[in-house]
Amino acid sequence: MSKTYASAAEALQDKIRLVPNFPAEGVLFEDLTPVLADAEAFRTVVDGLAEACEELGAELIGGLDARGFLLGSAVAYKMGLGILAIRKAGKLPPPVLHQDYSLEYGHAALEIPADSSELKGKKIALVDDVLATGGTLYGAKLLLEKAGAEVVGNVVIIEVKGLGGRERLAGPPLVVLGNTD
Amino acid sequence: MSKTYASAAEALQDKIRLVPNFPAEGVLFEDLTPVLADAEAFRTVVDGLAEACEELGAELIGGLDARGFLLGSAVAYKMGLGILAIRKAGKLPPPVLHQDYSLEYGHAALEIPADSSELKGKKIALVDDVLATGGTLYGAKLLLEKAGAEVVGNVVIIEVKGLGGRERLAGPPLVVLGNTD
Repeated sequence: MSKTYASAAEALQDKIRLVPNFPAEGVLFEDLTPVLADAEAFRTVVDGLAEACEELGAELIGGLDARGFLLGSAVAYKMGLGILAIRKAGKLPPPVLHQDYSLEYGHAALEIPADSSELKGKKIALVDDVLATGGTLYGAKLLLEKAGAEVVGNVVIIEVKGLGGRERLAGPPLVVLGNTD
Repeated sequence: MSKTYASAAEALQDKIRLVPNFPAEGVLFEDLTPVLADAEAFRTVVDGLAEACEELGAELIGGLDARGFLLGSAVAYKMGLGILAIRKAGKLPPPVLHQDYSLEYGHAALEIPADSSELKGKKIALVDDVLATGGTLYGAKLLLEKAGAEVVGNVVIIEVKGLGGRERLAGPPLVVLGNTD
């Protein structure tokens, strides 16, 4: 049977797949696939994320396409909330709300359905796996504000330091589940 | 507050966003975003999917990139199982197991990490939102069989009839949650 974990940091240490030099030379990629596929590690991580979202007063979970979906869905279910899928541009049929944002090299965009009247005034916690430059989470915040919602915090498992993500997301609280320091 | 639903079919009827002529002329696109964003509709759908996966004897949930992640994660969490993310090719660092499959026009591929020793002999239920041609679910089955796992069933919310999906997936049981006929 699966072993049990006292903390998310312990589950991550045991199950994460570290791949050097991906997607570029000098980058250490942290693949969470084995964490999520392990029942106990997955439960530990989801419970930790949900606790953080609860403390932020979230009324709806925003999941970022695609890996944020793998976490946000379970977090929302555990909390008895809905999950808002924040999609990469081009996936949803029109009409949509659209938000461009900049990445380290180039641009990208996020979308949600345009009829988002139920988002007005709603407190949303954004859930994703890894915080790197923070570009996507920041883009999601702008998109949700366009819909009249309030982003009450960003909740991630891992933070890649030195890329400015924490600074870019300044404002609502940032919770990094795997941080042990 | 959210209204409650007696069945997944009722939740779908109330919350689904129907968009004609997307992605092509004559196609009626069923956007599930509002279903998942509504706490009660989401819970009803996840509970229905989880019940189906339970009956299939699933030991692990396989979620298909990306919309299957939005469902499979909550289903796995509710059942106390892990979620295996079955990724579109190119998302995961090497080494990976790779499986090509054909779509109506062209080809695509799916991947999981190559070190999948824990998948050997495991009973996996595949979860996705919509069954159309069945190409992706069939590709996922071939990929998991390569890893030594057994696909015990396909569980989806909606079936688009007339595209041959049901026939293509013949073998393991197919459960369509939203079917009322």
